[in-house]
Amino acid sequence: MTFLDLVKAPTSAPDDIRALQALRAEGYSPADVVAVIAKSEGNGCVNDFSRTLAARAWAEVVPPAAVIVISGGTEGVLSPHVTMLVRAHGHESGLRGAVASTGVIAKTDLGRIGQMLAVETSVRDAMARAGLTAQETHFVLVKCPLLTSEDIEACRVAGESPVASDTYGSMGHSRAASALGVALALGECSPSDAAAALETPGTVWSSTASVSSGAELQDCKVVVLGSTETQGRLRARHSVMHDAIDVPVVQSLLKAVDEEGGHVVQVFAKAEADPSGTVRGRRHTMLTDSDFQSTRHARAAVGGLLAGLFGDPCIYVSGGAENQGPPGGGPITVVYRVP
Amino acid sequence: MTFLDLVKAPTSAPDDIRALQALRAEGYSPADVVAVIAKSEGNGCVNDFSRTLAARAWAEVVPPAAVIVISGGTEGVLSPHVTMLVRAHGHESGLRGAVASTGVIAKTDLGRIGQMLAVETSVRDAMARAGLTAQETHFVLVKCPLLTSEDIEACRVAGESPVASDTYGSMGHSRAASALGVALALGECSPSDAAAALETPGTVWSSTASVSSGAELQDCKVVVLGSTETQGRLRARHSVMHDAIDVPVVQSLLKAVDEEGGHVVQVFAKAEADPSGTVRGRRHTMLTDSDFQSTRHARAAVGGLLAGLFGDPCIYVSGGAENQGPPGGGPITVVYRVP
Amino acid sequence: MTFLDLVKAPTSAPDDIRALQALRAEGYSPADVVAVIAKSEGNGCVNDFSRTLAARAWAEVVPPAAVIVISGGTEGVLSPHVTMLVRAHGHESGLRGAVASTGVIAKTDLGRIGQMLAVETSVRDAMARAGLTAQETHFVLVKCPLLTSEDIEACRVAGESPVASDTYGSMGHSRAASALGVALALGECSPSDAAAALETPGTVWSSTASVSSGAELQDCKVVVLGSTETQGRLRARHSVMHDAIDVPVVQSLLKAVDEEGGHVVQVFAKAEADPSGTVRGRRHTMLTDSDFQSTRHARAAVGGLLAGLFGDPCIYVSGGAENQGPPGGGPITVVYRVP
Amino acid sequence: MTFLDLVKAPTSAPDDIRALQALRAEGYSPADVVAVIAKSEGNGCVNDFSRTLAARAWAEVVPPAAVIVISGGTEGVLSPHVTMLVRAHGHESGLRGAVASTGVIAKTDLGRIGQMLAVETSVRDAMARAGLTAQETHFVLVKCPLLTSEDIEACRVAGESPVASDTYGSMGHSRAASALGVALALGECSPSDAAAALETPGTVWSSTASVSSGAELQDCKVVVLGSTETQGRLRARHSVMHDAIDVPVVQSLLKAVDEEGGHVVQVFAKAEADPSGTVRGRRHTMLTDSDFQSTRHARAAVGGLLAGLFGDPCIYVSGGAENQGPPGGGPITVVYRVP
Repeated sequence: MTFLDLVKAPTSAPDDIRALQALRAEGYSPADVVAVIAKSEGNGCVNDFSRTLAARAWAEVVPPAAVIVISGGTEGVLSPHVTMLVRAHGHESGLRGAVASTGVIAKTDLGRIGQMLAVETSVRDAMARAGLTAQETHFVLVKCPLLTSEDIEACRVAGESPVASDTYGSMGHSRAASALGVALALGECSPSDAAAALETPGTVWSSTASVSSGAELQDCKVVVLGSTETQGRLRARHSVMHDAIDVPVVQSLLKAVDEEGGHVVQVFAKAEADPSGTVRGRRHTMLTDSDFQSTRHARAAVGGLLAGLFGDPCIYVSGGAENQGPPGGGPITVVYRVP
Repeated sequence: MTFLDLVKAPTSAPDDIRALQALRAEGYSPADVVAVIAKSEGNGCVNDFSRTLAARAWAEVVPPAAVIVISGGTEGVLSPHVTMLVRAHGHESGLRGAVASTGVIAKTDLGRIGQMLAVETSVRDAMARAGLTAQETHFVLVKCPLLTSEDIEACRVAGESPVASDTYGSMGHSRAASALGVALALGECSPSDAAAALETPGTVWSSTASVSSGAELQDCKVVVLGSTETQGRLRARHSVMHDAIDVPVVQSLLKAVDEEGGHVVQVFAKAEADPSGTVRGRRHTMLTDSDFQSTRHARAAVGGLLAGLFGDPCIYVSGGAENQGPPGGGPITVVYRVP
Repeated sequence: MTFLDLVKAPTSAPDDIRALQALRAEGYSPADVVAVIAKSEGNGCVNDFSRTLAARAWAEVVPPAAVIVISGGTEGVLSPHVTMLVRAHGHESGLRGAVASTGVIAKTDLGRIGQMLAVETSVRDAMARAGLTAQETHFVLVKCPLLTSEDIEACRVAGESPVASDTYGSMGHSRAASALGVALALGECSPSDAAAALETPGTVWSSTASVSSGAELQDCKVVVLGSTETQGRLRARHSVMHDAIDVPVVQSLLKAVDEEGGHVVQVFAKAEADPSGTVRGRRHTMLTDSDFQSTRHARAAVGGLLAGLFGDPCIYVSGGAENQGPPGGGPITVVYRVP
Repeated sequence: MTFLDLVKAPTSAPDDIRALQALRAEGYSPADVVAVIAKSEGNGCVNDFSRTLAARAWAEVVPPAAVIVISGGTEGVLSPHVTMLVRAHGHESGLRGAVASTGVIAKTDLGRIGQMLAVETSVRDAMARAGLTAQETHFVLVKCPLLTSEDIEACRVAGESPVASDTYGSMGHSRAASALGVALALGECSPSDAAAALETPGTVWSSTASVSSGAELQDCKVVVLGSTETQGRLRARHSVMHDAIDVPVVQSLLKAVDEEGGHVVQVFAKAEADPSGTVRGRRHTMLTDSDFQSTRHARAAVGGLLAGLFGDPCIYVSGGAENQGPPGGGPITVVYRVP
């Protein structure tokens, strides 16, 4: 059972690691880091080199076992920053967590049942080591690979059929399979429903998964976080936004934190363009804008809403919420401190 | 003194004028239309042909004297729609308004004192005809021209110096001069301060101006709206957001409307990337994103926030708030109905 | 048998129809127009409203039977312009052609065998009326519909399976089916090969088809052009570029025209990002650029090459060459005048 | 006097340094590297992190004194690759060159006379060490800094006036000042003309300068290359394209190389959107496209043309040609090998 502390700091560029000063100011050293979870300022899509650059800079300063998850895209008011999860000093924190990795995901398993089951196993493993039950688990972060053009061509040459014929498309399939793996590990659906959901999106979803995909890794990295609500000074809660502008859900979270006398130190949320093409019955244009990817639109909008409600632009809003919350919505987790 | 009613309807494409059915359902005809104010789904920047397309379609069906203002850009959850202001039947409405046009703005006056004074005159004229004092005026919409590449080249050939050497830059200067014209008309600043503000942005601003620029017109079109708070069943209020995530200001507006027993039927707000490069002291990346214009980022973020707080994606959020509210913020007007 | 003349003129905006002056200067009237083929300056993708705007402006001035094909995208040095095909005066022209339309393509037929066969029939019909054999046919232009978000959602609700789950994807499938229809009409492949090619792209292709898709129509419009090489003063030739930088093929066309003493008056070419991810064995990045669609990249590059080789930026280069020429290449047609 | 050899290799990602294998295959080691000149696949504009990523990877493997110039942007058919200039073995090469750096450019000097004179000094210094006269100098590459949002804000706070109020604008001013520094060093203009050209673009230009700007450095890096035409087996030539589609100039270069029995191994060219808004009298839309920067358009078009004429997508085409060749055109240098 590992208790964690959370240190958050702004970054001035993807490879800015001055957040280590904030870490030291809290009495920690880089050796204490269990996970680095950052928002960098690229496009969050296929050719987002801000992710690779940030991952490279952080890999030089944290322990090899630390999981580094860089999520691209700080559209609108969102501000580039890094969240460091560290092994807590003393016994004050109520936040528990652990990290895990699947092995390399075979190109033909990407976006399919092979990836889904590998993620399920890793999540179960991390939960066990963190001493978290499904009910106590409030956040499961997964970073997963995608198919590059080279991968797709290699499959073609080998006579294999990849899950998608283009890189951007593969990102969605990889996120979907990972999220279903989380749902399985948390008992949110049956194996047969999960398998079916790989074919028919939007039927089954996890209420704690936050998945992003990128070209900078070959395996899936997993971070689980949780707490028992009434214990410790650092705690977590989660809920699910049912669409991109679900203000009441956010207000309920804020109210619950307030009732415990706490203040929010970080928010983790997912955003996506509602696949129905509408929000509250009104047509949106995120899916028909050929100049700007829908994931970028969604991060900008949900980021604006959450930055406003929490009064903080340094929050983690990640795009592409396949099987993470209901279609058009997404899970939202808050980590908060009580006096 | 003209009392106005407001009819709002979604659009399925820039040239969709089926909103006329909603108009007729309310007992009005196209001949009653005083102004058409629409959000169309282009990029809201220089090459936004959705604006021209929409303006062309509406010009075929409303009276020649009606002002047509199409603002491009429905990023994020914002939904394309049209707001029609019509001469009200009976005496129930408390909403008063009028429209006016400057003559053609000379290319060398664009973004300068000539445009500013022309807008001031038109706003005063419209207010007088609407019977509105400065205090009763809650919204001044201006649509103004820009400099095309041809205009800039023509200036160069003629040995004249245009206010900007590129089209996108000219849009900002045109909005700035128009907003200062509004500020002058409403007594929000002195003529000398306004003239100085043309050179030094951000020092003086209007709290009711909402300006957008486009290639589809050569003059400036003006729409003024206002009401006395306690009279009539259709009313307006306004306030100023001090940054892009100023939730308390919006909640105050909502509370005031609620206290009158009203419900909001339309929101008009301006959005811009804070020119300081930060929001609440945190770095934003809207001004350094070479793939996506800052006005689009700002509309997406503020649109997400306001659509959430008002529970409606069909709201008018317009980008580029030079001298419209403080730097990084912008005016916000609500039109609401009481039973 | 209809002999055609060709008048080309630049445009200053998508709805600029001053090209009619050039038409009149050649002694023609709008009533003589058989087809309008324009390049407009939108993104050429889903939300390209420059196409709708141009189509609307031209529909007001040409006969209802005239086919209007607007292809979006003038990236790089390409210049917006319009080509008008008119019934020729006298007997000097050797250029023959005709137009045809399929009926409305059912949403479930789009990108499938139904659309393919409808296009085949229309092309055969137009060739017959133009008096052109397959060998004399040098250019077959098709404009075809796409699936909007609404179409895709309507299919979903109706329990039908559209060919693509996103609008941009549907554009490619629609172009592919149309091009195979042309290949069938010209005897370039067997019906069974064409049907198979709908499933496996790149195996069969037409050497004269030029297809673009757009939201502004529900049926497929067809224009065929051809000539016997040694007759008349206006003639056509075609060839096939085997990749995006196939200079020798272009030089051969130029040489052939030169040997007849002619000069080129218009070029029609297709461009696409090579689906293998490489050009001449070198990696390109068109398919991994999430900020800019590959069709735009391809038009810019091929447009730069052809504008240079022909010394003219007012040429018709259209993106998305599914089954139009070999993968990564595309058909190229020149219309030229001999003294 | 330093004789150089040139090794060129494709890259699979910005941080791919496997080109060192090609270097070793030619009998060289990383210690021999004098300069690394790469095209990486970012947007080539402000937020191009592919440049930082590539620079970081190369800095780890080449000597500290080596100059690393990464130019972002491989639009269209252009292919990411790296060119390594190394101290030549033996006496076969006729290619001479040297590198130099200015000190850190003060933020208030950027884009102004201070930067211009610093570059002039560095170029003269490099030419002297390479033993090159102005006439023998065929290529002067400069990589120079830009103003970040932070820099601009810092100037504002300090009461200083930076050359531009936005980052993208500062890139152009920095390139312009650097190019004029090259022109001065090569005697292409007088100091007073150069100073005047800082204010009035397009009046004076260098025929050998190739300048790009980026956020990854604070000083200006200079690389000069040249040769005497008839000596050695590796040689250089240069010319100037007068517009973006100047085919005859390229053909003349090819012919001259052919007459010496040589074959081209690398091409260095500059591209820009003609500031007049036209190419060959025809309107282009590069400067009015708010979705895609003009430098990206220009690279795609000129890259397509040159890749076609040289039959090679791995060429160095760099965007933004302020004072580098005439407006709308740019210098072009070929390095070629004779048997």
